[in-house]
Amino acid sequence: MKRPLILVSNDDSYMARGVHALIDRLTLLGDVVAVCPLHPQSGQSMAITVNSPLRITRIPDYNGARMYHVSGTPVDCIKLAMHHILDSRPDLVVTGINHGSNSAINVLYSGTMGAAMEGAAFGIPSIGFSLTDHSADADFTPCLRAIDVLAAATLRNGLPRDIAINVNVPDIAGTPEKMRICTPCRGLWNDEYKEYTDPAGHKFYWLTGKYVNLEPENETTDEWALSHGMISVVPVAIERSLDIDRGIPWLAGAVDEYNNRVV
Amino acid sequence: MKRPLILVSNDDSYMARGVHALIDRLTLLGDVVAVCPLHPQSGQSMAITVNSPLRITRIPDYNGARMYHVSGTPVDCIKLAMHHILDSRPDLVVTGINHGSNSAINVLYSGTMGAAMEGAAFGIPSIGFSLTDHSADADFTPCLRAIDVLAAATLRNGLPRDIAINVNVPDIAGTPEKMRICTPCRGLWNDEYKEYTDPAGHKFYWLTGKYVNLEPENETTDEWALSHGMISVVPVAIERSLDIDRGIPWLAGAVDEYNNRVV
Repeated sequence: MKRPLILVSNDDSYMARGVHALIDRLTLLGDVVAVCPLHPQSGQSMAITVNSPLRITRIPDYNGARMYHVSGTPVDCIKLAMHHILDSRPDLVVTGINHGSNSAINVLYSGTMGAAMEGAAFGIPSIGFSLTDHSADADFTPCLRAIDVLAAATLRNGLPRDIAINVNVPDIAGTPEKMRICTPCRGLWNDEYKEYTDPAGHKFYWLTGKYVNLEPENETTDEWALSHGMISVVPVAIERSLDIDRGIPWLAGAVDEYNNRVV
Repeated sequence: MKRPLILVSNDDSYMARGVHALIDRLTLLGDVVAVCPLHPQSGQSMAITVNSPLRITRIPDYNGARMYHVSGTPVDCIKLAMHHILDSRPDLVVTGINHGSNSAINVLYSGTMGAAMEGAAFGIPSIGFSLTDHSADADFTPCLRAIDVLAAATLRNGLPRDIAINVNVPDIAGTPEKMRICTPCRGLWNDEYKEYTDPAGHKFYWLTGKYVNLEPENETTDEWALSHGMISVVPVAIERSLDIDRGIPWLAGAVDEYNNRVV
């Protein structure tokens, strides 16, 4: 039986331990090609490089996986893999393991989830994995069984078009006992910039901040699951249009105003 | 009566004609503060700058609007405006006018819509405007009445939390007769990279490509409206989680498998 083809990417660069831990598990399930950013790309969301050229460089194989780095963003990696690296369409895209949480609103800014959503935009079942530990030498053991179960199930079952799965794993010792399907927690970032003064007396700013959970009592959220030692699984849709009448009742009236030139 | 406070941003930089055309209209409705990227940021999606510092620079007022540029992405502009520039919470965020369409799947990559979605993430009613003409000297006349009507209606009515409005305007002569609430067209980009060879014989790649409309007969899409000379209005949600049972029927079983350790 032909082994499935699995495309791997991340946002922490080809050097990150997280992507190596991911490849170690996925080579048990299929043939792996990894296309990762040359430089760290945290916070790159679904950014694409439009105003400069990109390079693809093949680097030594890792644990049986073909490895490349690309001089751009995580989404650039997926696009170049699809158009210029892979010989055939992958059966699965898996991104991560991210060094740090992509729960709650962080999914919007995450380069790891950006790459997974680009996989979904290509119509390929796509999953992103993140561990709630930012350190470069994080221990990815808590993620391994979740990768095994979810990657195998996704290969068997596929995913609806335009939907990716966002998996966050708490950095506890050993393997988390429980996994839960969650909603993304409503929250926001506070005190987002540290202010400095340069030698010439001009101010500059560096992004930082504390996440503020707006629904700490809600047991259905990913933040609740993670803070209780569980793995959170959140499906995310790249198609984000709304049922208009439910969403914005006055909008049809504004459109009528425009069309009827009633001022 | 106190005039509303309107925060403006874009992705084509503070120098772009599109943002000046937008400010010209919005100063009729309220007090405008514009915080725009120093350099063009097309395709930056919701990217944030996490690994380097940012500068805020006040520049001369334009048509009564306070103007700043920020050395980062469109989302950086909104975040710094909220935390370090504005004295009070804005009543409205308006981004654009983008030089080029942000219809269909392009909404995901757009820095202009990234800034609008960041406004929505802050809970502020937010609208992005784009004209389907990429040229630096585009004529933004077709957008003006749409800005007047939609900005005023949004100031009057607000928007549900976490929802922004994506407005695309066809580059026809004069003011489009019709505006329509649309779904984002399903489509994809084809032939996405032009391949070059550098003087040393190594290949490099530049993003390009043709948009392929996967539902050209569907009269509800933004692409259909634009190709028929109409303005498209698409509400987009930043909250993208799904009704799980409807979306991925097998996922609960995979989670059970993990939790019960049934392999």
